[in-house]
Amino acid sequence: MARVAILGATGYTALELLKILARHPQAEVVAATTRQENRPHLSAIHPSLTGLFDLRCENLNPAAVGRMCDIAFCCLPHTASMEAVPQLLEAGCRVIDLSADYRLSDPGVYEAWYEHVHTDPTRLTTAVYGLPEIYRSRIPDADLVANPGCYTSTSILALAPLLATGAIEPTGIIIDAKSGISGAGRTPKLSNLFSECNESVTAYSIGKHRHTPEIEQVLSDVGGAKVQVSFTPHLMPMDRGIFCTIYPRLTRKLTQPELLDVFRKFYVDQPFIRVVDHVPTTKDVSFTNFCDISVRFNRDQLVVCAAIDNLVKGASGVAVQNMNLMLGLDQRMGMLSC
Amino acid sequence: MARVAILGATGYTALELLKILARHPQAEVVAATTRQENRPHLSAIHPSLTGLFDLRCENLNPAAVGRMCDIAFCCLPHTASMEAVPQLLEAGCRVIDLSADYRLSDPGVYEAWYEHVHTDPTRLTTAVYGLPEIYRSRIPDADLVANPGCYTSTSILALAPLLATGAIEPTGIIIDAKSGISGAGRTPKLSNLFSECNESVTAYSIGKHRHTPEIEQVLSDVGGAKVQVSFTPHLMPMDRGIFCTIYPRLTRKLTQPELLDVFRKFYVDQPFIRVVDHVPTTKDVSFTNFCDISVRFNRDQLVVCAAIDNLVKGASGVAVQNMNLMLGLDQRMGMLSC
Amino acid sequence: MARVAILGATGYTALELLKILARHPQAEVVAATTRQENRPHLSAIHPSLTGLFDLRCENLNPAAVGRMCDIAFCCLPHTASMEAVPQLLEAGCRVIDLSADYRLSDPGVYEAWYEHVHTDPTRLTTAVYGLPEIYRSRIPDADLVANPGCYTSTSILALAPLLATGAIEPTGIIIDAKSGISGAGRTPKLSNLFSECNESVTAYSIGKHRHTPEIEQVLSDVGGAKVQVSFTPHLMPMDRGIFCTIYPRLTRKLTQPELLDVFRKFYVDQPFIRVVDHVPTTKDVSFTNFCDISVRFNRDQLVVCAAIDNLVKGASGVAVQNMNLMLGLDQRMGMLSC
Amino acid sequence: MARVAILGATGYTALELLKILARHPQAEVVAATTRQENRPHLSAIHPSLTGLFDLRCENLNPAAVGRMCDIAFCCLPHTASMEAVPQLLEAGCRVIDLSADYRLSDPGVYEAWYEHVHTDPTRLTTAVYGLPEIYRSRIPDADLVANPGCYTSTSILALAPLLATGAIEPTGIIIDAKSGISGAGRTPKLSNLFSECNESVTAYSIGKHRHTPEIEQVLSDVGGAKVQVSFTPHLMPMDRGIFCTIYPRLTRKLTQPELLDVFRKFYVDQPFIRVVDHVPTTKDVSFTNFCDISVRFNRDQLVVCAAIDNLVKGASGVAVQNMNLMLGLDQRMGMLSC
Repeated sequence: MARVAILGATGYTALELLKILARHPQAEVVAATTRQENRPHLSAIHPSLTGLFDLRCENLNPAAVGRMCDIAFCCLPHTASMEAVPQLLEAGCRVIDLSADYRLSDPGVYEAWYEHVHTDPTRLTTAVYGLPEIYRSRIPDADLVANPGCYTSTSILALAPLLATGAIEPTGIIIDAKSGISGAGRTPKLSNLFSECNESVTAYSIGKHRHTPEIEQVLSDVGGAKVQVSFTPHLMPMDRGIFCTIYPRLTRKLTQPELLDVFRKFYVDQPFIRVVDHVPTTKDVSFTNFCDISVRFNRDQLVVCAAIDNLVKGASGVAVQNMNLMLGLDQRMGMLSC
Repeated sequence: MARVAILGATGYTALELLKILARHPQAEVVAATTRQENRPHLSAIHPSLTGLFDLRCENLNPAAVGRMCDIAFCCLPHTASMEAVPQLLEAGCRVIDLSADYRLSDPGVYEAWYEHVHTDPTRLTTAVYGLPEIYRSRIPDADLVANPGCYTSTSILALAPLLATGAIEPTGIIIDAKSGISGAGRTPKLSNLFSECNESVTAYSIGKHRHTPEIEQVLSDVGGAKVQVSFTPHLMPMDRGIFCTIYPRLTRKLTQPELLDVFRKFYVDQPFIRVVDHVPTTKDVSFTNFCDISVRFNRDQLVVCAAIDNLVKGASGVAVQNMNLMLGLDQRMGMLSC
Repeated sequence: MARVAILGATGYTALELLKILARHPQAEVVAATTRQENRPHLSAIHPSLTGLFDLRCENLNPAAVGRMCDIAFCCLPHTASMEAVPQLLEAGCRVIDLSADYRLSDPGVYEAWYEHVHTDPTRLTTAVYGLPEIYRSRIPDADLVANPGCYTSTSILALAPLLATGAIEPTGIIIDAKSGISGAGRTPKLSNLFSECNESVTAYSIGKHRHTPEIEQVLSDVGGAKVQVSFTPHLMPMDRGIFCTIYPRLTRKLTQPELLDVFRKFYVDQPFIRVVDHVPTTKDVSFTNFCDISVRFNRDQLVVCAAIDNLVKGASGVAVQNMNLMLGLDQRMGMLSC
Repeated sequence: MARVAILGATGYTALELLKILARHPQAEVVAATTRQENRPHLSAIHPSLTGLFDLRCENLNPAAVGRMCDIAFCCLPHTASMEAVPQLLEAGCRVIDLSADYRLSDPGVYEAWYEHVHTDPTRLTTAVYGLPEIYRSRIPDADLVANPGCYTSTSILALAPLLATGAIEPTGIIIDAKSGISGAGRTPKLSNLFSECNESVTAYSIGKHRHTPEIEQVLSDVGGAKVQVSFTPHLMPMDRGIFCTIYPRLTRKLTQPELLDVFRKFYVDQPFIRVVDHVPTTKDVSFTNFCDISVRFNRDQLVVCAAIDNLVKGASGVAVQNMNLMLGLDQRMGMLSC
């Protein structure tokens, strides 16, 4: 039984993580932290967890947490993570960081997109990017796993097989992404109020979204050439789900069955990837760790569609998948198997 | 052409008011205030108003606003209104106050429910409660109209005919009310985030909601006996709409047709009340100033159902209806007629 | 490993059941039926199940199904169930019927509410009403379990402790119930279209809803006196969830803590009932088998609030809970435990 | 006062049309047709219209309707329209057809996309495409106006200025379109049930959507070169609204201000087009006849965003705009002016 801790227990990714861990037969949550000083019970912060955990949230420092657990999930905001993670590691635990702080290997790229100097740049090269379908072999021995962004995972999973096989050009890839509102987090802001989001669709952060360099970094690694994407995120009036509609340029003539075959071969034996004949829909993957992918042709234009649950496969589900691999367990544990 | 001003232009009731006034042939918006100092254009605060008004919001004091307009709509929060309204009136304009500050005639009741001493208690007795279907005769000459609460209007309109005719007992009336989220306002709070409200229903403020004394005050006035209601509000995952399901106790045996007839007689010639045979639905009144009402029997238990749009008939539509009456215009102007 | 079958696999309760059974360590789905003749794969009917089952739906007769399985879940519409269930039982399997056909012990009551003569009236007295929190002792040995209705379960769970202890009057109980749209089923009808239901709230079937006699039958049994409720269901614009706001009349003066204590004692050791201090919300129980209950006072009026997920605790979750009890397993299996 | 009639009054476009016409000072609805034989009152079909019209729907033949009115709005499904329209015209009224039957000028293109031989091909060349921002000069004298599709209008309005000025290549234009569910109509189908659509996003009809040839026909006309688009529609869980995110290829280097200027010049004096600096959102145009447009750069990739209300500017609002032009009225009448 692994002892796990959660830093920053108040947000949606922490809540989702706790729900998955409640069903996990090999993990015990021993600590959950908050900056609140009154030691609130976990079920006071998240009433939906009532009866599932007998645990109070405490304002523990990372070093103390690190001594209590085998694996720490760091659900802190970016820049806060890079302060906590070194202390956690030095205290002897292993870390799965759900923030963006250790995802980009180049501190200059981090600084350019996050407008913040990275204070732990050396670990950027040793952290493992926690997308098991791409970097599975490196995860079991990692001490620090950088859990991917939600848009990032969807985009990478939808493009990796095509780039790995040279089927598409590495540049000029248009990614039109649609997300549910939970991706905006649990901090109250005008833009994530119900009455602003409901019955509304809009695009945001065009050309500036911070998942862009992540997508390009991993896909460049996969494809062996510098990948450049045009990534446009949109907000949809729903809780959960990411749907990516991707318009790449083929390098050679390929049929839909041939392309589906490229995907099926690339993802053979991957329990959470479903290459499907029908067009995916976010509802089919809601509350699961699946990523559904298919391809279509719009006359000559290839269209790749992929759907995930942003809080599960896009955050906390893949985090547990990473934990399972780090612990030598079946990666499905707590999600598909028991 | 009446000159109108809006104090507190950033919220949802102000926005709805501006949308109605944009279509109103006899009203010109000459001022809109905000506490922001940078004189933002109205369309910067409400992009949906782009092209409808050429007006900047200014941090004007109430006295200055009062000198510029014939009628001021006060969309400030409660307690702020009771500071602004006296200045507006003294500057010579007439006022429609959308806050709760002038709705209760007894300053002690105000203090008990709002936990704030009323600083303008003398005007509580002269202010006219702005529900035209009940107090129409007093509105044309009023200088200060207290615009009703949204739950309040729905509940009163659904019960007034029954109390006025002695058909139901004045006590033990159960009001189960369901509201869309826009009623919670535009200030960011955890409880009105999309990801908290969507796919969720809950009750709140049970026994403590401040619309309770308003409902009881007006219905006691209508019924000629002290009315006591048990009012329980709920939040529904939708933008707009209030649906009240009301369970009164009949004083004598009456059939459904007889009860519908009571309503139809009471509301004869009221353009915004629709007594319908079918069960109302909030969607049928969305974006309108209508209140749809019907009655049913559940075995022997009378059930009254009423639906309004909380931002229109529950706030800004009835405010314009009041303005029309104050200006001697057709009360439908800007809504049903032109 | 129990062999289970599902009759009528195309609807929402069957889908939810299959999702739970996919995680269940002691049940294997060996058959799923449909009236379609082309033997569609389960994932063609429910794409969300892709990869979880390797099973085709077949147009099997009940007798054939009964010979293949240990337990059959009957997800057929009412009146169809009473034709299939006798054949299933005679073929030797045990049955959990999710329709209404075996819930009412009196065939006359069935006929009055369902306007259909019951063709298998003798089994009405031997079928066990499958609400484990009330009838747990009878379920392990039952051959035929009548799975409760969704509104029914919520209402009963919110009232049983009060009636069992004589704390409330058995008559004049007002139940104002709010449900998500999935309760209306998967058959296309105008009234369950997105564009009709979204942004809308309404009441329906006032005085005529068929869950009324179920509620009264079980609560009369629990309370030892004829219970009479006034039940008014409403549709909310959301997928899942039932919220019941219940207004009973106390027989004696009791405080909120005393009443919570009544609930906590009645439901001690019930893993799926959470008596909470806060007002429940449907979101907290979504996708779980929990029923959250609390009480409030609105001046002197007692208000009981209860929330469930209509497809889980209101249908397929409690069905698995019943199956677990019938198989001698931990009733939480497949839901809270593994 | 123009006498207008509506053929096919039961759907959402007819309902929206009736709501606009109820506010229109120069149009009187004299007839509304249905295939139902029992002469239902309009408010029995659309309860939201209660009190607005005193009109029964009748099963009138088109010739009879044509003799009763000056202008007929044809809200019939495609293929039914081409049977009714000739009769209407021959009876002497003018026609605004909201179906797709008269939008494509080439009967071969119609047959290829609609899989139906056009039975009134000669009128395809005389019908005027009713997008006033493009074909305004032809509308006042038209006897038959083909009202545009909803996706079509959005796409054309977002691209016409760029093609007319040669700023973008006419081919390889990627249109990623997102629509609310009301676009799917009021006929019950599994795919437009609430419980299927809510909390879900998906793409559909990739490469096969029938608005594609419309978009290409009009834009080719505007741009003077054969335009080819890759159009991918998506369904969003909301009632109303279309958001198009369009990725064209520039023919020369242009800045964002220069591009906004191209749009502002092209749409000068167009009351319903708002070229805005911010990214549009569907909520800002809901229940209005506005089309909001802006442009962004995603690195070098131009992104054009446009939003409309699919039932207003995408159907019934533009239909009234066309009617106004045909009657020599201010085109804003009934919408922005009175």
